[in-house]
Amino acid sequence: MNSKIKKATFEEIAEDLNSLDTDTVLVVVDSRVWQHYGESFQKEPLNLLNLKNKKVHLYKTLEGETTKTLLEFEKGLEFFLEKGIHRQCHLVAIGGGATSDFAGYLASSLLRGISWSVIPTTLLAMVDASIGGKTGLNSKHGKNLIGSYHMPVNVWINEAFLETLPPEELASGRGEVIKYGFLSQEISDLFKKKAKLSQVIEACARKKEEIVAKDFRERGERVSLNLGHTFGHALEKIYDLPHGTSVFWGMALIFKLWGNSDHLELLRDFEKGIGADFGNPPWLNKTFPVDKIIEYVEKDKKVRNNGIVDLVTIKDVGTFEKVPTSIEKVEEVLEKNKDDLRTFNF
Amino acid sequence: MNSKIKKATFEEIAEDLNSLDTDTVLVVVDSRVWQHYGESFQKEPLNLLNLKNKKVHLYKTLEGETTKTLLEFEKGLEFFLEKGIHRQCHLVAIGGGATSDFAGYLASSLLRGISWSVIPTTLLAMVDASIGGKTGLNSKHGKNLIGSYHMPVNVWINEAFLETLPPEELASGRGEVIKYGFLSQEISDLFKKKAKLSQVIEACARKKEEIVAKDFRERGERVSLNLGHTFGHALEKIYDLPHGTSVFWGMALIFKLWGNSDHLELLRDFEKGIGADFGNPPWLNKTFPVDKIIEYVEKDKKVRNNGIVDLVTIKDVGTFEKVPTSIEKVEEVLEKNKDDLRTFNF
Repeated sequence: MNSKIKKATFEEIAEDLNSLDTDTVLVVVDSRVWQHYGESFQKEPLNLLNLKNKKVHLYKTLEGETTKTLLEFEKGLEFFLEKGIHRQCHLVAIGGGATSDFAGYLASSLLRGISWSVIPTTLLAMVDASIGGKTGLNSKHGKNLIGSYHMPVNVWINEAFLETLPPEELASGRGEVIKYGFLSQEISDLFKKKAKLSQVIEACARKKEEIVAKDFRERGERVSLNLGHTFGHALEKIYDLPHGTSVFWGMALIFKLWGNSDHLELLRDFEKGIGADFGNPPWLNKTFPVDKIIEYVEKDKKVRNNGIVDLVTIKDVGTFEKVPTSIEKVEEVLEKNKDDLRTFNF
Repeated sequence: MNSKIKKATFEEIAEDLNSLDTDTVLVVVDSRVWQHYGESFQKEPLNLLNLKNKKVHLYKTLEGETTKTLLEFEKGLEFFLEKGIHRQCHLVAIGGGATSDFAGYLASSLLRGISWSVIPTTLLAMVDASIGGKTGLNSKHGKNLIGSYHMPVNVWINEAFLETLPPEELASGRGEVIKYGFLSQEISDLFKKKAKLSQVIEACARKKEEIVAKDFRERGERVSLNLGHTFGHALEKIYDLPHGTSVFWGMALIFKLWGNSDHLELLRDFEKGIGADFGNPPWLNKTFPVDKIIEYVEKDKKVRNNGIVDLVTIKDVGTFEKVPTSIEKVEEVLEKNKDDLRTFNF
């Protein structure tokens, strides 16, 4: 039960929307995306609010991650329920990963689940967040701790959206893109030959789709997509970093402490190959925040029985390794390297 | 992927809990149930808070339906997330249908889904709500409009709980029990020979399990369990009735307007057979509330594309019928019978 993932123009998206087996489409759009594109969404060829023979209910979310709270979730639910929707309604999310996380959880919760599709508008969403059916809200205690698995029917990728993407978001997306270089020899090669971003996006989306098809509920290979995320999520909270940027630094940490220097070198090579520049580690010349990192790692969804966390690292490009490690051990390693990390760069 | 449904003493439940493959059990218990049973839950043989080699986190919900709000849902989620739980945690719901609706949705949403089990403490939950994996919260716009499908692993039925159940709740549960008489010749026969409640409970739970096993996502036979519910949900809200009581009157309405007088007669026979007495219709000698009923029916989860609602009625005992009907038609029929219903009794 995979998603149909395809590159699509506005015209093609409109065609697909019109052929959906429903009389009602629920659109959930990031308000910032609406500011940029609202006008062009309302005229041909997309003409989102005036689809053939279909009612459309439009809901604008708060910008990005700020919408992923239970309070906003309730507003979204009640907005659509007030319209008197039914189970054949189809929901369409338009925005970055936060929007699809939020909208996907809405779709999975409305009337115990309605079908949905995504139009990702950020690099990060095109290569990662919009694919694979993970939905989620944030908790006081960590990111995405509340949510569901609910596979979208369609993912329509239109790279034209990247033209208006703020540079820091484009940079952040490159963090997730770099991750795929470690998971796939093919994508690593694309970096080496400085392939066009468009080609890289397609390869990453396909790679993710392939992994998810084999392991929807993350009991095996899907955990490889978590490379850089265990420490990344903690860094994201501690330093208020964009997601992909924190994944980049999460990979740096895991390679430094559980990998080897070849991988660190490759990390910088990939960074250059994809035209990114993440600069210096956020912890450079500061006290390395061991306690705070442990606090977040403890609440990570990947922690298993008896305080074991499955760290993900790389053997060789294309071959990941799951390293089950006790939280105590993680703390010990961080504590031991604390002073070294203060001045660590690569 | 059915639940294991079994009658179980506290001793047997304790044994099963101790053998769960987890180091942590999350208990969600109705606060009224805790008042009655908290003490006996904390000593042998159950000794819930002191399970062998397991941590237990205990969360007490508000009483019954009042807990099924997004605000309470958020409190429950953050309570458990604050503990630093992991995906192998197992959640156990103890209470009536509202508690399992609420706790099941918690289990399906925590870390994108953890496993769970139920100990139903009301008649309604033993024969219906605890079985089949429907979870839910209430919306401003109707009951159970928010939720998920998430099958519990175990349902442990201990009829001792019925001894402390308030008489009106026992009566309400009989409304759902009567429904099964129309869906199963075997259960109808149990009513006729005035079988013990214990025997009836087991037959109803088995019947529901059988239906759900064939049709988890309600695309076919599971809709038969909705007998009495389309109007029942509206009556429940309008007259503030207990759930099973409103299902009884929902069946009366559907048989009167879309069935025949034999079924109405049978409804009263079953009522006597199971030792219930629902008295007079709540609308008797009042203006029949057509507009309000339509307002709720329009928002019912069973409404499909183009305003069609699948009414459920009975051909013969054991054979249900799905009657797709436009909301306009429903309104027309109610409007035509409005005056008649004012004095309708049977």
